Amino acid sequence: MVRYKAIISYDGTNFSGFQRQPNGRTVQSELEKTLSKMASQSIEVHASGRTDAGVHAIGQVIHFDFPHERPLERMRFGLDTQTPEDIACRSVEIVADDFHARYLATGKTYEFRVDIGKPRSPFRRYYASYFPYPIDVEKIQQALPDLLGTHDFTSFCASGSSIEDHVRTIDEASLTVSSDGDELIFTFSGNGFLYKMIRILVGTLLKIGNDRMPVDAIPGIIAGKDRNLAGPTAHPEGLYLKEVRY
Amino acid sequence: MVRYKAIISYDGTNFSGFQRQPNGRTVQSELEKTLSKMASQSIEVHASGRTDAGVHAIGQVIHFDFPHERPLERMRFGLDTQTPEDIACRSVEIVADDFHARYLATGKTYEFRVDIGKPRSPFRRYYASYFPYPIDVEKIQQALPDLLGTHDFTSFCASGSSIEDHVRTIDEASLTVSSDGDELIFTFSGNGFLYKMIRILVGTLLKIGNDRMPVDAIPGIIAGKDRNLAGPTAHPEGLYLKEVRY
Repeated sequence: MVRYKAIISYDGTNFSGFQRQPNGRTVQSELEKTLSKMASQSIEVHASGRTDAGVHAIGQVIHFDFPHERPLERMRFGLDTQTPEDIACRSVEIVADDFHARYLATGKTYEFRVDIGKPRSPFRRYYASYFPYPIDVEKIQQALPDLLGTHDFTSFCASGSSIEDHVRTIDEASLTVSSDGDELIFTFSGNGFLYKMIRILVGTLLKIGNDRMPVDAIPGIIAGKDRNLAGPTAHPEGLYLKEVRY
Repeated sequence: MVRYKAIISYDGTNFSGFQRQPNGRTVQSELEKTLSKMASQSIEVHASGRTDAGVHAIGQVIHFDFPHERPLERMRFGLDTQTPEDIACRSVEIVADDFHARYLATGKTYEFRVDIGKPRSPFRRYYASYFPYPIDVEKIQQALPDLLGTHDFTSFCASGSSIEDHVRTIDEASLTVSSDGDELIFTFSGNGFLYKMIRILVGTLLKIGNDRMPVDAIPGIIAGKDRNLAGPTAHPEGLYLKEVRY
């Protein structure tokens, strides 16, 4: 068996998330279907982590064991073109047998896009969350540094997660505005993120930008370790898994 | 009756084009359905021109007669939110009774987007045409000025059009590359364009950029007045009606 690592991107709109499940179309099952056909035997795919229904990936990382070595570009091309058109394969490489897409990930970057235009762009309806209310970008930018560093992010973790250690380190938390002024682009990098953490962070930051929460609210929310202190969970269609680091 | 002019945008992916037809979902029929409900009587919509199946609009202009005056923002909001989510209404104004979205248009601007990335972006599959072959952007930029001015564009007109006068004036023909280098963005402005003219122009320019046609081919193609001299018709999903001028 040869272990391959691949960087894939997908439009999450028509998927019930990444992870295989009995009902519903998922990215994992489409990848496994294609690879199993290519290998003429059952292949299992492991990702850096799941993504929820509607969430997109620009640089999701997977690994899988293939029964024989295949030229890299042929493997990439097969994965790219034999999967449905909402999945693309950006690159493929052979890795050591002990590489693991999930356990060895040391960092991830997510992007979150918010359409603030009026009206909502028909082109962004599946690719950005919509926020048609007054927004003070500078207030959000003032609040973002409070997220940096190592904290217990319990307040930004959705219930239903079985992970007990809620301490994570955020290295980058930034916000830019698109050149036409109609889109906010949040970027978050860290050593890992809790269940729905990015979406709760964005929901909270939009509340700050909308003046419904003080600009210095973040440290108190973190210290309180209570999900009820943070803002709502932003919609999945704005979220992109951009990069996974090893 | 009060005549309204509205600027609308739509994602053409799930429409059989703009124009009402017996079968198939069209932009015109969705707009007329919504306006007729708002007016409690049948309303007819006139556009600056049709767009084909899969073609998008950022700034299509329509006009219609409404039985009574309505506050502009209420009219815009109604058209925006009561139509399906792939149609948006950007603005509405009251115009003179003799305004006509089609007959009084003095100019139009179209954009054409080409995904030249490898692999094809899953996010652009409905929003850009795909061209995965070598492309020399400078050669295209060198050829573009040959399109400027007033010419008989018969060679760039698809058969099946009943319009006999093929003389049009192009004021702008430009090409830029997106910041990530993965997308070509063509812009064409002129006093009007023939049936499928932009898509045939792009198909021809991509042939020049791909070295399958000389960089100085345009004047000869124009002079020949023969559709067979030009390149293929580029796919509809890259085309956007950006602006209509009056």
